[in-house]
Amino acid sequence: MKTLNPLDATWLFVDSARTPMHVANLSIYSLPEDAPDNWVGEMVAELRQTRAFAAPFNLRLTSARLKSIFPTWSETDDIDIDYHFRHSALPKPGGERELGVLISRLHSHPMDFTRPLWECHLIEGLENNRFALYVKMHHSLVDGVGGMRMLTKMLSFDPAARDLPPPWSVGTGRDGPRPPRPDAGRTPWDKLRAGLRRQGESLPELSRAFGDIAREAVKHETPDWVLPFQAPVSILNKPVSAQRRFATQHYELDRIKKVARAAGVTVNDVFLGLSAAALRRYLGELNQLPEQSLTAGLPVSVRPADDEHSGNAITFIISSLHTEIADPVERLRAIRASTQAAKEHLQGLPKAGINNYTMLYMSPYVLQMLTGLGGRMRPMFNLTISNVPGPDRPLYFNGARLEQMYPVSLLSDGQALNITSVSYAGQFNIGFTGCRDILPSMQHLAVYTGEALEELEAETKARRAA
Amino acid sequence: MKTLNPLDATWLFVDSARTPMHVANLSIYSLPEDAPDNWVGEMVAELRQTRAFAAPFNLRLTSARLKSIFPTWSETDDIDIDYHFRHSALPKPGGERELGVLISRLHSHPMDFTRPLWECHLIEGLENNRFALYVKMHHSLVDGVGGMRMLTKMLSFDPAARDLPPPWSVGTGRDGPRPPRPDAGRTPWDKLRAGLRRQGESLPELSRAFGDIAREAVKHETPDWVLPFQAPVSILNKPVSAQRRFATQHYELDRIKKVARAAGVTVNDVFLGLSAAALRRYLGELNQLPEQSLTAGLPVSVRPADDEHSGNAITFIISSLHTEIADPVERLRAIRASTQAAKEHLQGLPKAGINNYTMLYMSPYVLQMLTGLGGRMRPMFNLTISNVPGPDRPLYFNGARLEQMYPVSLLSDGQALNITSVSYAGQFNIGFTGCRDILPSMQHLAVYTGEALEELEAETKARRAA
Repeated sequence: MKTLNPLDATWLFVDSARTPMHVANLSIYSLPEDAPDNWVGEMVAELRQTRAFAAPFNLRLTSARLKSIFPTWSETDDIDIDYHFRHSALPKPGGERELGVLISRLHSHPMDFTRPLWECHLIEGLENNRFALYVKMHHSLVDGVGGMRMLTKMLSFDPAARDLPPPWSVGTGRDGPRPPRPDAGRTPWDKLRAGLRRQGESLPELSRAFGDIAREAVKHETPDWVLPFQAPVSILNKPVSAQRRFATQHYELDRIKKVARAAGVTVNDVFLGLSAAALRRYLGELNQLPEQSLTAGLPVSVRPADDEHSGNAITFIISSLHTEIADPVERLRAIRASTQAAKEHLQGLPKAGINNYTMLYMSPYVLQMLTGLGGRMRPMFNLTISNVPGPDRPLYFNGARLEQMYPVSLLSDGQALNITSVSYAGQFNIGFTGCRDILPSMQHLAVYTGEALEELEAETKARRAA
Repeated sequence: MKTLNPLDATWLFVDSARTPMHVANLSIYSLPEDAPDNWVGEMVAELRQTRAFAAPFNLRLTSARLKSIFPTWSETDDIDIDYHFRHSALPKPGGERELGVLISRLHSHPMDFTRPLWECHLIEGLENNRFALYVKMHHSLVDGVGGMRMLTKMLSFDPAARDLPPPWSVGTGRDGPRPPRPDAGRTPWDKLRAGLRRQGESLPELSRAFGDIAREAVKHETPDWVLPFQAPVSILNKPVSAQRRFATQHYELDRIKKVARAAGVTVNDVFLGLSAAALRRYLGELNQLPEQSLTAGLPVSVRPADDEHSGNAITFIISSLHTEIADPVERLRAIRASTQAAKEHLQGLPKAGINNYTMLYMSPYVLQMLTGLGGRMRPMFNLTISNVPGPDRPLYFNGARLEQMYPVSLLSDGQALNITSVSYAGQFNIGFTGCRDILPSMQHLAVYTGEALEELEAETKARRAA
């Protein structure tokens, strides 16, 4: 029996029927050349035979009833593989639309807390001889980077490699769950209180950093720097319902790089620019575009290069999406100024104090989730936009080429939309996870993101020519 | 806003994550001859256009939060058809096995109590040019007979009929939900207490009937008559988990009639005999066959021929399955004696008192459900075996012939298996709904039921020849 570390436990604590805290990875494969008709069926049957379970696939909550009070993991070998590994199919024509609808459904289904908290769905019937793998896991077991590592560990750079083991036999590669911290055994609430108390013991540099935030909040000397709670009220920040929508978009990474170079911004800035353009248009059509610009929370890795710990090393910066600006190139440059101001503040911080900084900076957000106040008070930022680095070379599963992969994320009250991208072998893939009842026709957001890149390409080209 | 009648409200009251109280009908169709490749897709698109909703499809709980305390229905036009009407597909080869797995999953998913409590899944990809329709509804909105009426109202005897409306536009045919009774507005608890209190005002004949039960319990003069709570302890009567298994079996009705004639029993007795044979073998292989015979609760319609009320007119009789007898024909005759003894007692009852009789007879069962004691006390009977009459002539939906239909039932704590059959156009179709964790490889039960008929055919033939 193992106690969860407080960060992992938080995901169980805030889990509810309306805000299930599972995340997933959707990967799409093309069949090997000359694959016979029953290739997928045969592979499913073979994978199903592999009943060795690596952590975290062999972990179960010791008591599902106590999940939010005092969660602990137990290892188990008694796993009903037919329950966790599911073979599904798409109706014809098996296009992106049918796949999006099925993923929306699968991602809306709650997990069964009496079993290990993962599901693996192999989906056949995608047009052009493809199949998909949707691997869903509770966020208390894995984070975005861990999930990516898990998936890539399952795959091979070698197209000729066969008999690759299924994800549940590979695991994250750690010997077990994250080791408990010295203060394990206390509830997430205890830990949160302790974290807030520790702020009093911060380093002098850190105090200066908070001084900067406080001064800026009053004097507003750096107009590009967005502080928490400067987000406008929007439909993106209502309490969410239990059902999800999922949509995808993907580009050649080179197209984004080209626009970034032409406009003198980063790839991530272009990603924000595309999201901003799509949101401006989508919310505008719904008559729900706030006058003041939307703001986005951006998770940023702050792990030093020589840090080998597997634990959490993420902080957030907040950037303006400048959805009040009509011109796409001007908007992109304003976004650039905003992300730079936020990063400069972050870089001025001492590395040693970064966790305490994150805790204080993010604590109102965490508190909103823990207290269930999300969607009922002013949002810290309007939505999360995240960029997860993926493998840069083509990967294969038993000879099937990994064509694309997408993250499927989670929502909480007050955060009804998540846009996360992942790069892979020269691609830039975006997954949109949204609340079904707040965001009608969310597929349009993905389409508009695609059209926004065409617009930026045309505009940057035209301005350079002029 | 309409108050539910107490019987309907009870289904909401006992609904829980582990014991969701929805029921479903699974119907299988063969495509019209020369149907083009996109026939199903086109029909789905057309049906989706029909956004007129008849009761009970337009009813939503006024407050999902108060569902178990003071449930009332509101009518709504704001229905997200893409949520309720779902297009799915089976993986290859699209046989009975793949269909059973998908139905098991769909039936395990809880309903969203913030929306009208129904889902309609059109499933393509069944082998031999077939598709399936799985219509799921909360039991508070519909009962078995009502569901059958709803389905058949949607269909046509005419293979040439086209542009038939979807189930949600047809409804049960009533103008609205069941009218509230004079004592509506009280909670199910109040009603139950009142019902039990009313027993004191029973007719003299009814008192005599209960006297018979009491005397029999002490003296045991009619050995074939099974009383409540004479069931042995078995795995069928444990508390259930949230996940379901579903399996099917179907026969030509003539085969069952022939065996019934040869053995001098009814069609329903043969159905019980087949279930008994399969259970004896299945539980025997699990080393879980009780020494004492299993007993079954059989819903019996007690509606007089001249009664036009649409309300509930069902009572239960309890029959022994005589799983302690090894010989199949001898077992069948013993079952016959048991059902006859129970029916004779029932026929001795005055029609006017039948509802009170049912209430008292069944109240321990209802109380087990209401108090959550199911699976923790001696079961009233080991499982429910039910026989729903269906249409006797072939039916069509937009030219697609209805081939088979199956009921998918509900479970409660202490009732981990339900076997329900429905007759249709010369067929006898059986649906097995079971608890996933209590009944491993439940598909075997269906297979054994099939083999049991072959055995009964051979045995009755051999004995007649002898």
